[in-house]
Amino acid sequence: MDFQHLIVNRQSVRKYSNKPVETEKIQLCLEAARLAPSASNSQPWTFIWIDDPELLTLLAKASRGPLGTFNNFVSQAPVLVVMVIEKPKVLTEMGGRLKNKEYSLIDLGIAAEHFCLQAAELGLGTCMLGWFDEKAVKDLLHIPHEKVVGLLITLGYPAENYPLRKKVRKPFDKVVRRNSY
Amino acid sequence: MDFQHLIVNRQSVRKYSNKPVETEKIQLCLEAARLAPSASNSQPWTFIWIDDPELLTLLAKASRGPLGTFNNFVSQAPVLVVMVIEKPKVLTEMGGRLKNKEYSLIDLGIAAEHFCLQAAELGLGTCMLGWFDEKAVKDLLHIPHEKVVGLLITLGYPAENYPLRKKVRKPFDKVVRRNSY
Repeated sequence: MDFQHLIVNRQSVRKYSNKPVETEKIQLCLEAARLAPSASNSQPWTFIWIDDPELLTLLAKASRGPLGTFNNFVSQAPVLVVMVIEKPKVLTEMGGRLKNKEYSLIDLGIAAEHFCLQAAELGLGTCMLGWFDEKAVKDLLHIPHEKVVGLLITLGYPAENYPLRKKVRKPFDKVVRRNSY
Repeated sequence: MDFQHLIVNRQSVRKYSNKPVETEKIQLCLEAARLAPSASNSQPWTFIWIDDPELLTLLAKASRGPLGTFNNFVSQAPVLVVMVIEKPKVLTEMGGRLKNKEYSLIDLGIAAEHFCLQAAELGLGTCMLGWFDEKAVKDLLHIPHEKVVGLLITLGYPAENYPLRKKVRKPFDKVVRRNSY
C-alpha cells in the first residue's frame, strides 16, 4: 500500500470484532513506534501493551467520558497500548525550556501515528484516546506518580463491514499558505 | 514501499542537492499533512510553504543554533515548511485543560511526520527543526504575534551519495512492557 493509500485507510476505529490480534502484529506496531524519530533522538517514551482481560475492562472504565458520553467502545478492543512520557535528554529538555516547547508531546504524536499507520497496513484498527483518568491508569499499571501518561491507543480488528469513512478536513487552500502567513 | 521500509528510509537529511523540488511533490507532502488525524479532528495548524530564496536565507539564519553549533545546513534546503499552531476547537481545548494536556502539540507531531514520510516515499529528504528564533520567524512571515510556531521542516533532494544511516534506538525490551509498568 503506498503512503497516500495508507493515510486514507487509517481511521479511528470505534467498533471491534472479537478476533484476537496476533502477537507478531502487535509487536510490529510497537516496533514501528520504537523506530519513530524524536527531538535529539531522545525517545522519551515507554509503551505498555495490555492484553489482560481484567485490566482491559478496568482501563476501558477509566477512559470513559463523563456520564458515558464517549469512549464507550474501548471495552471491545482486545489490546490497549498506554504511552508513558519519559524525561527527554537533558539538552533536549533545556532547549525545550528555552524555547518554551514541550518537544516530548510532539515526539509522542509521531510515535503514536507510526503505531497507528503500521496497524492500518496490517488490517488492524486503532483509536487514540487523549481523555482518561490518569490517576486510575497509573494505579492499574503501577506507573510511578511523577510520570505523565500521554495517550492510550486501542488496537483490534475492526468489526465486520466497518465502513471506511471519507475524511472531513479543511480545504487545502485554507491550511496552506505560500511565503507569508 | 511498505510501511516498515518507509520508516527505515525516512531519516533527518542535513545535506541537500541543488535540484529543485517539483511543485506537485511539495503539494503531495502538504496534502499528507493536511489529511493527518487530530484530537476531535480540530486540525489546529497552518502550513506555510517557503520557496522564496531571500526568505529562505533569512529563515536559515533564524534557525541556526547558538554560535553556529547546529542547523547550519538549513540554508541548503530549497524548500522550508513552517508549521503554525492554531487554536483547537473549544471543546478540545477545554478537554486539554481539564486533563492538562496540550493536544495540539501531539497533533502537530502527527501532521509533521505525515509530511516527512510522504517526502521519504517520493525520494525527498526532510529535517524537523524545533530550535529557531520564533520572533524572527513570525516577523519574516507576517505571522500574528499571539500565534505559536511549532516546527520548521526542511525539504529537498538529499545530496548525492547521502548515506542511509542505521537507526540508533533503545532496545525493544527497554521501551515495551506488558500489562504493567
